[in-house]
Amino acid sequence: MSRPTPISGFPEWLPPQRMIEQYALDRIRTTFELYGFAPLETRAVEPLDQLLRKGETSKEVYLLRRLQADDGDTGEDLGLHFDLTVPFARYVLENAGKLVFPFRRYQIQKVWRGERPQEGRYREFAQADIDIVDRDSIPFHYEAEIPLVVADALGGLPIPPIRILVNNRKVCEGFYRGVGVPDPAEALRAVDKLDKIGPARVAALLVETAGATEAQAKACLALAEISGPDASVADAVRALGVQDPLLDEGLTELVQVLDSAAAHAPGLLVAELKIARGLDYYTGTVYETQLAGYERFGSICSGGRYDNLASTGTERYPGVGISIGVTRLLGLLFGRGALTVSRQVPTCVLVALPAEEDRPACDRIAAALRRHGIATEVSPSAAKYGKQIRYAERRGIPFVWFPGADGAPDEVKDIRSGAQEPADAATWQPPADDLHPRVEGKET
Amino acid sequence: MSRPTPISGFPEWLPPQRMIEQYALDRIRTTFELYGFAPLETRAVEPLDQLLRKGETSKEVYLLRRLQADDGDTGEDLGLHFDLTVPFARYVLENAGKLVFPFRRYQIQKVWRGERPQEGRYREFAQADIDIVDRDSIPFHYEAEIPLVVADALGGLPIPPIRILVNNRKVCEGFYRGVGVPDPAEALRAVDKLDKIGPARVAALLVETAGATEAQAKACLALAEISGPDASVADAVRALGVQDPLLDEGLTELVQVLDSAAAHAPGLLVAELKIARGLDYYTGTVYETQLAGYERFGSICSGGRYDNLASTGTERYPGVGISIGVTRLLGLLFGRGALTVSRQVPTCVLVALPAEEDRPACDRIAAALRRHGIATEVSPSAAKYGKQIRYAERRGIPFVWFPGADGAPDEVKDIRSGAQEPADAATWQPPADDLHPRVEGKET
Repeated sequence: MSRPTPISGFPEWLPPQRMIEQYALDRIRTTFELYGFAPLETRAVEPLDQLLRKGETSKEVYLLRRLQADDGDTGEDLGLHFDLTVPFARYVLENAGKLVFPFRRYQIQKVWRGERPQEGRYREFAQADIDIVDRDSIPFHYEAEIPLVVADALGGLPIPPIRILVNNRKVCEGFYRGVGVPDPAEALRAVDKLDKIGPARVAALLVETAGATEAQAKACLALAEISGPDASVADAVRALGVQDPLLDEGLTELVQVLDSAAAHAPGLLVAELKIARGLDYYTGTVYETQLAGYERFGSICSGGRYDNLASTGTERYPGVGISIGVTRLLGLLFGRGALTVSRQVPTCVLVALPAEEDRPACDRIAAALRRHGIATEVSPSAAKYGKQIRYAERRGIPFVWFPGADGAPDEVKDIRSGAQEPADAATWQPPADDLHPRVEGKET
Repeated sequence: MSRPTPISGFPEWLPPQRMIEQYALDRIRTTFELYGFAPLETRAVEPLDQLLRKGETSKEVYLLRRLQADDGDTGEDLGLHFDLTVPFARYVLENAGKLVFPFRRYQIQKVWRGERPQEGRYREFAQADIDIVDRDSIPFHYEAEIPLVVADALGGLPIPPIRILVNNRKVCEGFYRGVGVPDPAEALRAVDKLDKIGPARVAALLVETAGATEAQAKACLALAEISGPDASVADAVRALGVQDPLLDEGLTELVQVLDSAAAHAPGLLVAELKIARGLDYYTGTVYETQLAGYERFGSICSGGRYDNLASTGTERYPGVGISIGVTRLLGLLFGRGALTVSRQVPTCVLVALPAEEDRPACDRIAAALRRHGIATEVSPSAAKYGKQIRYAERRGIPFVWFPGADGAPDEVKDIRSGAQEPADAATWQPPADDLHPRVEGKET
């Protein structure tokens, strides 16, 4: 065969990048677990009607077809999931009798969208989601907790600082209703396009699609301009003079989310009343996240409160959740060379091989090191020691272990400094910093 | 919507099962890293011609189609990968210039096959693979190392013991050639069906498809009957009186793999000369793995040496690898209730909430516990303490934390024993056994 080439939109990392991704995922997952979120995975496929039920994603779905479908197939159309929220809502309904509510879960999986690929936009990418769902109703305080979990998860990574932008759908909807816009849902969709098409065209859309007067459109745009880190945001909204009970409820919630974050993570949250999120299913707080220096690439972590995503005629499981766009985040940072790893293999020690017949003895040394958690390889061949050391150097393996001959003790060499000392494989420990590969940020 | 139902062949675990799976994957991955395998993931899709290049899997491939494909698409057919070996071979060719050889990688991902589902056979399932590839040629000793890594990875899990069955394609091919079977490749395929269709029908197949005489078919079946844990296997083969240089080479290798395993993991490996592996690409040692008590469900971990999977006209990257069928393994054990986990959430401590206005103080307690690695939730509501304790009980959370009132110290209660004692969130540690959920095997 000829040399294969990449497929646009389906990114693949080199091993050092994958090591960085693995490190980031471990950190994210550990944090989720510290907050009591249980792990979950759902199948990659959903029935097509499920996938088309919510949001504006119908055009992006990949359908599946068996190369040689046989007659036993039911013929049900299956597609790859485009997010983890819709499958999770389906899972909750399907397994409600076996789950304990409120149910906190995290889910880290690939999703697929048939979008046109561009920087930071992929056709296959990993998301790391947390959601909390409850039966019938869900306490509001979870809407304040969710961004703090994300900040904790990402805060431990060597990446630029994040800023989480929040809004509350009740504020927008209540405000639009209060000023008398005939179709508040359409108004929300129009305002959601503000960053893309600018205020003049949004105003035109508000008139055309939401049935607003020009004065109403102006009021909607005035609301969208408001932003701030604290209760002053609510004052600014009230200064616009619009009255509506849903608006009041939304403002109270918004301020509560801001206050809670200010107590635990000052500077993390900013209210941005133009944030609306494209997806239809949000009903309360919504979140977007900016990465400092990468704002123009859009949100790297989004979510919100949803009341009606998981419901049958008789049951309802409202929830709140957020999704870290792991591939997008790392793709942007990799693109700038903003993350490094200290070696490109997990290996901490290479056991040098004096002669091929020493392999069993060298395997025993390696086994002894591995027993106390030191990642170890034995040299692939009994080449000259210089060549064996180069094997370690090319991979960034910091230590080479030389088996002692004729009863002499083994010696271990730090090939960066050249320092070499006698060592016992049963007890030797590398400096803590060298035990695992180190992931670090790099100014770019 | 109505309550959704499962899709046959696409298993989904409940949270406790997923916790067990996560535990197993962590153990497997940690072991792989201890042996110096670097992490890697490949995209889920491959061009169809890649997928159809090797093996008998063409009928099992899922093809992808965008719901609303536009004219900009190249129209290249993409399918979901059915294993991780073929994508890895493609990845090696594509990135050869950026990799360091010999290249050791592990890869843990879902794969998809359009097979008819049955117990232990899924349409979507996770595999955990290791492979070592080298440029031009690869040292034989890796064929002895691979099964030891798997034994180490699975040996740390609370599952029944495994037995790895080995053979060497050179033994079979050399033997068939030595006895004069006209089409050794077809003979291999026929013998591979031995367990499914029995010796009489294999003999018939050998005559029909491989062009063997009845005497030659009989000799092939005599070879397939041989098994044993050591060099006696080679003696038994030689006693059949067949001469062939490839056969000799194969027997030497087979005995070397057995000897190496006997030194490091006695009883782990058994030569079974009927093992052939369906896939065409193996050229040396092949592996299958039986789980004690579940032998009839087939191999839970298979692989082998391949010379020509990753090659262009001018380059060749021979390799050896093995794949743990994680979903299959766990599906079988879950089906028998053979694995348990001590709680169904990661949470170790529930902080009780005296009143809703105490939430900020309780959040601070939780933050202090999390800071030293203790997974903690705050109670969802300020219900009566009895109800809050039931929240913990229903999830298996072992400890409930009671904030002290009016300057009294906090107290922590082990809700299993009822023991309660004063505690400081900044320093308290649970017994080591309770820090994380415990996964245990259960006699069934």
